[in-house]
Amino acid sequence: MCKSTSVDLVTKTDQKVEQLIISSVKEKFPTHGFIGEESVADGQPCILSENPTWIIDPVDGTTNFVHGYPFVAVCIGFAVKKTLEFGVVYSCIEDKMYTARRGKGAFCNGEPLQVSQQQEINQSLIATEFGSNRDPDVVDKIFSNMRKILCLPVHGMRGAGSAALNMCLVASGSVEAYYEIGIHCWDVAAAAVIVEEAGGVLLDLEGGPMDLMSRRIVAANNQPIAERIIKEVGGVSCCPG
Amino acid sequence: MCKSTSVDLVTKTDQKVEQLIISSVKEKFPTHGFIGEESVADGQPCILSENPTWIIDPVDGTTNFVHGYPFVAVCIGFAVKKTLEFGVVYSCIEDKMYTARRGKGAFCNGEPLQVSQQQEINQSLIATEFGSNRDPDVVDKIFSNMRKILCLPVHGMRGAGSAALNMCLVASGSVEAYYEIGIHCWDVAAAAVIVEEAGGVLLDLEGGPMDLMSRRIVAANNQPIAERIIKEVGGVSCCPG
Repeated sequence: MCKSTSVDLVTKTDQKVEQLIISSVKEKFPTHGFIGEESVADGQPCILSENPTWIIDPVDGTTNFVHGYPFVAVCIGFAVKKTLEFGVVYSCIEDKMYTARRGKGAFCNGEPLQVSQQQEINQSLIATEFGSNRDPDVVDKIFSNMRKILCLPVHGMRGAGSAALNMCLVASGSVEAYYEIGIHCWDVAAAAVIVEEAGGVLLDLEGGPMDLMSRRIVAANNQPIAERIIKEVGGVSCCPG
Repeated sequence: MCKSTSVDLVTKTDQKVEQLIISSVKEKFPTHGFIGEESVADGQPCILSENPTWIIDPVDGTTNFVHGYPFVAVCIGFAVKKTLEFGVVYSCIEDKMYTARRGKGAFCNGEPLQVSQQQEINQSLIATEFGSNRDPDVVDKIFSNMRKILCLPVHGMRGAGSAALNMCLVASGSVEAYYEIGIHCWDVAAAAVIVEEAGGVLLDLEGGPMDLMSRRIVAANNQPIAERIIKEVGGVSCCPG
């Protein structure tokens, strides 16, 4: 699999970091499965089985990494029987370690995280991304969705350039919600546990619970905010990058 | 003067910080002039004279401040005979102190800054903002400009939610350029010195040198990148928020 455009930069660092993580984990847990961005790029299957599975994004925010833009993360999620059990997102440049284990809370550098208590979409800050696909139809859809959200209105829109860190900003209460079409399971698996354990919700952009494999997500501080976003941008079939 | 919409949040903190800075400086330099966001909002004139003038944004990124999004800055620029002589931008949540004095270089926490050496727009990361104006014509223009830049194509687009910190990211080499229509002199005065001293350029979005009072800016790593942006988004009369 080739990344879709030259805009989506691949670096040797991604491959090295992923190999390092997988080989370290394999030593201790030889029967576990792995889904990693670079392994999938290299032809490995991208299937979440019942088997204990480590879901790894070695460098989330690759474009940021190349440019030195300060939102770059290493993401490791762990699922058993298709249920995510823990997630770790390390924001390397900020030196922030986000961690969460199901039922045990979410933390940043050991400090507990809680989502925003905001109930009103028009008092909210929303995160999303322009993505790396420059196909006109895809760009049309992205801009059309952004405009609908901006003009609800909301306080503002942000994009850190990393799906995982956008989600950690939801968990931290800095933004009320993050949505995106075109993400992969390794972009969001680790951060998904962090959002839920900080009190947030995860939905599919077409409604219903988040499906790690659907390439669509809305992560929000609460159900009303998530549903308001789905009402604006969801319900149209996914056109991932 | 009222801020244009409820989206552009005013906080008591802005006013307190600005009063603190102005009263401290006035004690030492009683004849100097001041242009501050909150003073202008309170009816003071927004005129840059030949007199030594301190140009102050007590909280750049007010929406970020309210939401706890981690790009918030205190900005102090100083001009004599309408020429900017030094600038200080303190990114409070990141704890980064950006400083520059004309002819003496630009620094972040004492480390020298240099802009990106990138010459190709299609290898660049560009910063801009959605702004706080939700008037459909203004939003049309902002989205139209963003789309033109995105599809040049560029590597990506980012917005920190703070004009000053977008410019400091230009100075740091993290993004190649930042442009915006609707900014005020206090948003950009301090960071302007930092960009120039890091080797960057400042232009008016309609071409020619930056005019602090024009409410339009492009700050870039070099002239070709700045001119490429002006070619796409400039040349149309300004419709500031």
